Amino acid sequence: MEKEKTTIVLFSGDLDKAIAAFIIANGAAAYDHDVTIFFTFWGLNTMRKDEVVNVKKNWLEKAFGWMMPRGPKKLGLSKMNMLGMGPAMIKHVMKRHNALSLPQLIELAQEQGVKLVACTMTMDLLGLQKEELVDGMEFAGVAAYLGDATRAKVNLFI
Amino acid sequence: MEKEKTTIVLFSGDLDKAIAAFIIANGAAAYDHDVTIFFTFWGLNTMRKDEVVNVKKNWLEKAFGWMMPRGPKKLGLSKMNMLGMGPAMIKHVMKRHNALSLPQLIELAQEQGVKLVACTMTMDLLGLQKEELVDGMEFAGVAAYLGDATRAKVNLFI
Amino acid sequence: MEKEKTTIVLFSGDLDKAIAAFIIANGAAAYDHDVTIFFTFWGLNTMRKDEVVNVKKNWLEKAFGWMMPRGPKKLGLSKMNMLGMGPAMIKHVMKRHNALSLPQLIELAQEQGVKLVACTMTMDLLGLQKEELVDGMEFAGVAAYLGDATRAKVNLFI
Repeated sequence: MEKEKTTIVLFSGDLDKAIAAFIIANGAAAYDHDVTIFFTFWGLNTMRKDEVVNVKKNWLEKAFGWMMPRGPKKLGLSKMNMLGMGPAMIKHVMKRHNALSLPQLIELAQEQGVKLVACTMTMDLLGLQKEELVDGMEFAGVAAYLGDATRAKVNLFI
Repeated sequence: MEKEKTTIVLFSGDLDKAIAAFIIANGAAAYDHDVTIFFTFWGLNTMRKDEVVNVKKNWLEKAFGWMMPRGPKKLGLSKMNMLGMGPAMIKHVMKRHNALSLPQLIELAQEQGVKLVACTMTMDLLGLQKEELVDGMEFAGVAAYLGDATRAKVNLFI
Repeated sequence: MEKEKTTIVLFSGDLDKAIAAFIIANGAAAYDHDVTIFFTFWGLNTMRKDEVVNVKKNWLEKAFGWMMPRGPKKLGLSKMNMLGMGPAMIKHVMKRHNALSLPQLIELAQEQGVKLVACTMTMDLLGLQKEELVDGMEFAGVAAYLGDATRAKVNLFI
């Protein structure tokens, strides 16, 4: 019997939306779905390494790189961000409730074989290079996403 | 013949997105779909009672409870909120066009048997308790959502 | 064999989300899917003509019309809008990478036969009239959207 399939486009670079995306992805993987998360636009920031990676960029790519959050620990909230107090509060309560943090959720997704795909077109636009994203990602365009989505029942845009 | 199924994750706590979610849900229910709305994160605020409910909370849960909007009448807009003038304008034009208000859309959804499910994990995080949400809701986690979504054709994340 | 179907609700009026919606829609159309984009709330602004159209409006409809962006060239970003510098930066890098601009993506969608449907209920609320939207759109309500979505595998809310 063919496995159920779930795909998520993670467009948003907000901490709360990224958490929601990875909780759904990990839940679906636990139910033995084939799961793909397709990271595009600001969602790519979720998968940036948190250290500066030495790659060649023009000034505009450098500007984007400097302005955008560097990895899951730097993301803000979609609501009640309050200059970073909101994310700190959310992280505090998640820890108190023994909920997995976003970096842990990402690690779990990797362990469970969730396919993590970076959108090459928006990487180009934002000047992000493969070396700047966490290891083990795949790189593809909208055609690959649509190939997966057409075979999936649960398709979300977050 | 099995009924068509529709699920909506309501993540957003914006008035305009909540209205869109309930219009789609009520439309699908009118077409005899089994419809589930799964309220998570800020979307839970849509279903808060508008009076203060006397429950025991720690200081951080009290802070969240105080900062977040208490029910559908208190939500802001995702765009053009303009310190509350935007929501007043939208409510005004909806009334003039005899469109159902969000509280009426919620009531209609309940009458049509739309399954309204509060995400227990985010309730814990935000310190929201069952007594604070409107009556008649169900309480479940991401597994229950995925169970419904996998059987549905229309799955939206709002 | 019946064609695959894809539907997108474009609720957002942000440039970056509109670009994502049209890239997915054009990709699906290139794979010979029947594609529908259903424009509702702020998403309608994507399809406004950029000139002022002489139609009769009350003062509130005039106020909405004046405050909302007039067409794809006037949209802001969901993140890093920076008083319009963000959209200028994105448009600049899209041009440098020979990516299609949003007006070109819209044109391509029309050429590929993507069904572009304006939500009549939110047109009424926001006081937008048929003459103010680009030519060749269809006009319908949530029932028509659900009719398409129920037959589609990929259904996204953007």
